[in-house]
Amino acid sequence: MNAVAFDKEPVSITASDWVPDFAQGMVRDLRLRWALEEAGLPYEVELVPQGTQARAHNLSRQPFGQIPTLTAGPETMFESGACVWRIAGASESLSPGDEAGRDRCLSWVFAALNTVEPPLSMMATLFFFETQPEQFGIADAGAVATIKPGARAAALLRLKQLADVLGKRRHLVADRFTIADLMMVTVLRVADSLDLLAELPDLRRYVSLHTARPAFRKALEGQLAPFRENAAKYETAG
Amino acid sequence: MNAVAFDKEPVSITASDWVPDFAQGMVRDLRLRWALEEAGLPYEVELVPQGTQARAHNLSRQPFGQIPTLTAGPETMFESGACVWRIAGASESLSPGDEAGRDRCLSWVFAALNTVEPPLSMMATLFFFETQPEQFGIADAGAVATIKPGARAAALLRLKQLADVLGKRRHLVADRFTIADLMMVTVLRVADSLDLLAELPDLRRYVSLHTARPAFRKALEGQLAPFRENAAKYETAG
Ligand SMILES: N[C@@H](CCC(=O)N[C@@H](CS)C(=O)NCC(=O)O)C(=O)O
Ligand SMILES: N[C@@H](CCC(=O)N[C@@H](CS)C(=O)NCC(=O)O)C(=O)O
Repeated sequence: MNAVAFDKEPVSITASDWVPDFAQGMVRDLRLRWALEEAGLPYEVELVPQGTQARAHNLSRQPFGQIPTLTAGPETMFESGACVWRIAGASESLSPGDEAGRDRCLSWVFAALNTVEPPLSMMATLFFFETQPEQFGIADAGAVATIKPGARAAALLRLKQLADVLGKRRHLVADRFTIADLMMVTVLRVADSLDLLAELPDLRRYVSLHTARPAFRKALEGQLAPFRENAAKYETAG
Repeated sequence: MNAVAFDKEPVSITASDWVPDFAQGMVRDLRLRWALEEAGLPYEVELVPQGTQARAHNLSRQPFGQIPTLTAGPETMFESGACVWRIAGASESLSPGDEAGRDRCLSWVFAALNTVEPPLSMMATLFFFETQPEQFGIADAGAVATIKPGARAAALLRLKQLADVLGKRRHLVADRFTIADLMMVTVLRVADSLDLLAELPDLRRYVSLHTARPAFRKALEGQLAPFRENAAKYETAG
């Protein structure tokens, strides 16, 4: 059986047709779009209507009913980390030419997703608990405020360790832009949205540097455009 | 530069020389040991003394001062996900022979680490907050109990989605044991230790099936043996 192939027909990714304000620009298809734009690979976008993600059709390709997926021909991959790694394998623009450099990129991709992101996900979850307590069976939203300093400290520990390693450098691996930077920057944008980068100027600089890349701007605009087009359909009149 | 090479000299991994009871059998070097045992690849273990992980020597090879790492010759990888993926690439025993099958494994490895594990990490963090509130700046440990039902529900959502996909099957990919199962089982053991599998018999069965593998037993015993040897050094007399 063939793997996801980039040489025959354009690949296709899934994205949301609309998400609430706080999630706009943060949905994880952005990682795939950015990687595909950097690689100069053509792709199509299938917009999944808001609220239909957990339907059978989407579950059949994404076991957790999430965005994004990456499809080419009969094969579909899921998980932004896996999809982006696969895209990087199809292009020289996202990884160093040597295997050792690619191994280092892989370490950093997993660090972004399994060491830096989890404490940020916890903070995001606490944010939801605080703003919609009844939806999550939280009897007293005030309890969240008590937990937050601990969760914040856990997230800041990882961010400070990252800042120590990065220092004034522009790239994590091989003195060039790689998938390691792409993935870490998307995770740091989450940290920034949670107000965690204020005292970490090296990380802010690093994020600004790479989000100024034309491929990032194009990817972001690609995610946001449908949200504008579909806003009327979902936003209840204020 | 060469990548981590398995053909020249035995690779070396880092592990802890001792951890407290609740972490015994759960430290993430277990994933590397298990993969190396399945692959029949020889390896050496460097025991990092408890309490020294954040020292310069360890930070120079693992930016977050964590266990485990994987070293061969001059190259070191970090993050259990990256290390295990690299080991799988050096052996036919951990992945399907076709690229599409390997892509599916990669999707599941990231699902284990970036979708199933984060809500479990949140529950583990809440456990630490509850048992050592002052260490984490939590003013009132009672607040943790208020948050727990929401955190538990978030973790159970992912576990139920996984149980739905797995059903009565024994393997996630290609009707054979792969790195996808290896990684998911290690994450589900965390869920089990948090008492989250009680009502998910298919997941319990899946964990039991694969933790009965000789390679797993050997890996687990390899992690536990030094803890026994070093217990006297660390355990304060009760
Ligand atoms: N680990 C997954 C996470 C994907 C994810 O969280 N997707 C969100 C949008 S950014 C989603 O679909 N959420 C809806 C849900 O989880 O039900 C990945 O990286 O692909
Ligand atoms: N995402 C990392 C997590 C590693 C991790 O959490 N290691 C623990 C032991 S299981 C550790 O070293 N903890 C000490 C610390 O984080 O300071 C991986 O999978 O390698």
